[in-house]
Amino acid sequence: MRPYEIIKKKRDGHELSDTEIRAFIAGYVAGEIPDYQAAALCMAIYFRGMTPAETASLTMAIRDSGDTLHFEGIHGLRVDKHSTGGVGDKTSLAVAPIVAALGVKVAKMSGRGLGHTGGTVDKLEAITGFRTDLTTAEFETIVNKVGIAIVGQSADLAPADKLLYALRDVTATVDSLPLIASSIMGKKLAADDDCILLDVKTGSGAFMKSEADSRALAEAMVDIGRRAGKRVRALITDMDRPLGNAIGNSLEVIEAIETLNGRGPADFTELCVALATHMLVISDRGTVEECEANVRRVMADGSALDTFAAMVKAQGGDPEWIYHPEKFPRAPYSREVPAPADGYIVSVDCEGYGTAALLLGAGRNRKEDVIDPAAGILLHAKTGDAVKAGQPMATLYASREELLDGAEAKLLASTVIGKDKPAARPLIVGVVE
Amino acid sequence: MRPYEIIKKKRDGHELSDTEIRAFIAGYVAGEIPDYQAAALCMAIYFRGMTPAETASLTMAIRDSGDTLHFEGIHGLRVDKHSTGGVGDKTSLAVAPIVAALGVKVAKMSGRGLGHTGGTVDKLEAITGFRTDLTTAEFETIVNKVGIAIVGQSADLAPADKLLYALRDVTATVDSLPLIASSIMGKKLAADDDCILLDVKTGSGAFMKSEADSRALAEAMVDIGRRAGKRVRALITDMDRPLGNAIGNSLEVIEAIETLNGRGPADFTELCVALATHMLVISDRGTVEECEANVRRVMADGSALDTFAAMVKAQGGDPEWIYHPEKFPRAPYSREVPAPADGYIVSVDCEGYGTAALLLGAGRNRKEDVIDPAAGILLHAKTGDAVKAGQPMATLYASREELLDGAEAKLLASTVIGKDKPAARPLIVGVVE
Repeated sequence: MRPYEIIKKKRDGHELSDTEIRAFIAGYVAGEIPDYQAAALCMAIYFRGMTPAETASLTMAIRDSGDTLHFEGIHGLRVDKHSTGGVGDKTSLAVAPIVAALGVKVAKMSGRGLGHTGGTVDKLEAITGFRTDLTTAEFETIVNKVGIAIVGQSADLAPADKLLYALRDVTATVDSLPLIASSIMGKKLAADDDCILLDVKTGSGAFMKSEADSRALAEAMVDIGRRAGKRVRALITDMDRPLGNAIGNSLEVIEAIETLNGRGPADFTELCVALATHMLVISDRGTVEECEANVRRVMADGSALDTFAAMVKAQGGDPEWIYHPEKFPRAPYSREVPAPADGYIVSVDCEGYGTAALLLGAGRNRKEDVIDPAAGILLHAKTGDAVKAGQPMATLYASREELLDGAEAKLLASTVIGKDKPAARPLIVGVVE
Repeated sequence: MRPYEIIKKKRDGHELSDTEIRAFIAGYVAGEIPDYQAAALCMAIYFRGMTPAETASLTMAIRDSGDTLHFEGIHGLRVDKHSTGGVGDKTSLAVAPIVAALGVKVAKMSGRGLGHTGGTVDKLEAITGFRTDLTTAEFETIVNKVGIAIVGQSADLAPADKLLYALRDVTATVDSLPLIASSIMGKKLAADDDCILLDVKTGSGAFMKSEADSRALAEAMVDIGRRAGKRVRALITDMDRPLGNAIGNSLEVIEAIETLNGRGPADFTELCVALATHMLVISDRGTVEECEANVRRVMADGSALDTFAAMVKAQGGDPEWIYHPEKFPRAPYSREVPAPADGYIVSVDCEGYGTAALLLGAGRNRKEDVIDPAAGILLHAKTGDAVKAGQPMATLYASREELLDGAEAKLLASTVIGKDKPAARPLIVGVVE
């Protein structure tokens, strides 16, 4: 079937076959199908949607468009979690050591990408000497020995997703549930995990603003994962405010360490416990209650922190930084941002907070930008907290003083202070399995 | 506004402004907006439609994307007609001389293009010596003197339409009413006519299969024309069977001559009278009854034929061919196609008849193909006519004997013969003004 016929069939609301979807994606990646036909198909999908079977076919076509990983040298079940993204989301740094401390392997490949802060590997590189470019043999050895390793993505995973995402980004076809679900899962399934826990964010700082949309995305992704033979589950979690208090690379590693020590912010701790618990549940480690008790135990007895330190050591970093986070270099310039008025923080624009961190040097605007590991924001008050005029509600960190002005202005403009305490929102909104 | 924002606005069902539409089209023609963004916009328009104001803005943007014609040397009102296309449609050849004989100028630029037969200029070039490449001065002089001239389109009219049409053709976005209406009217308005009569075809051989769709297209185009300050009207006419009996270039010129002589097929004659009448009405030449009486008079007294002959002479052809059409060269090979059974022709596939003519050499598959002026089909029976097995229902003409087989097979496969006479369909379905 010609690409034209495939576009027309979708345009007219008919279900595409697995063969048709795979042929289109393969032809697009091979450069035989031009961007303009792919753009037309994406827009037709935007309007017509896709059945679960079509969405799964698209996902598998994306997964199979490049390399797929096979870690035959790793013994035992492998689990991973994937978040749809949010500001201050450093959960991987905390939950991966927790589940590894409980005997489930975490063989994590993580991207860098663009964003308000770096990706997980960028954050870990805030630890001097930490290597994220391991060979496959090194990677497998460390996972077997320590239970966990985290490396940058070196293989050419899911190139169809890169092409499609770049195209969707400029043709107003990003906001399509089957295209989002297949993009996330196509990449995720190219890695070699047995169990996948999805953290689907909901709220003003998330891609999906409404709970209904988030739930639909979670259901679509769980369905895809199951069709691919994975053990998969999704948590729907709140992203109406930044997660935890730290936004920035070393600041987030430090917050993850504090959390493994039982001294983390309440919201971030709650989320880490929930995610780690469900990662263990889908890895057949017991009931929710049993798994949660074990999670709390390895946080309390230090074995999760020891696992983190062991990974850092195995990957070339100094484990003493994990036990003494004051060893992380501090930014030379900082500024406290005073609250402009008395009252409560009624709401914040998460994106605006992220942009403030980016302005401080914590993230990348363009691929070639260099991340400043020490730059970022520590929040002293978040949505629902009381503030007093003149008292600090955040501290900014940067390597150059002039970066502080723009970030301060952005932070203030992204914070709404009012007289009434806003209603609390639950952090864990739902579980989809 | 960025192209992305324009696509998104249309995707979300909002009305685009004139400025936005013009900026997008201008950017696309300039090569600043890539095909994939234009494809996404076309698909969004396919699903969301356009308001009359948006459709008009798109049309004017297409019109203004290249040259626009100005024949300041021509005196008096200029009228043109435009057909949405059909098999055997040679009406321009007959109606243009009729209205010119009644004093309304016809300064016609006509394309060649691809199709089952050539365009109007290809048909006229069946007359040896006929020049369709006049200078503007020659063109204006002939129109002033004879009342009519027909030339090939030399100026770069509406390049946006060529780009958009080529893109829509491969992205399944042709079947969109605002895109069709703006494509036709964008080109038409780039020419310099005061009055435009649209012949919107309906039925199985037309682009619009249903009367409702044809009426909607007619209404959209009339609205656009009026917004552009033109006197405009549309007839909706039947294209469920080929028009007249001739399909092919010289065969169609001969049929037009016969029609101006009062000896044309009934259906083609009826359509020519109706079109010429309404062209005169919108040119302020009286009521429908008055104009129709005048049309019949210039056909009966030979003055329409004289006008045709005068145009042929002025453009370099031998006017004697018009008075003695037996002078047109005949194809060296012909074959009568016998009816395969007794009964009535219940229906025909117009497209199939057109393809048969193309197989005989009457049209172009690719731009570089050379048209055979003598090739084509003369029908002896059409939908509703009784046929007897073995008696000829058509004669095929070609320059090579082997072309006849494929055309005969196609013609037979495109003809349905049954026991019952089908219900007659009116030729003139409606008038939109």
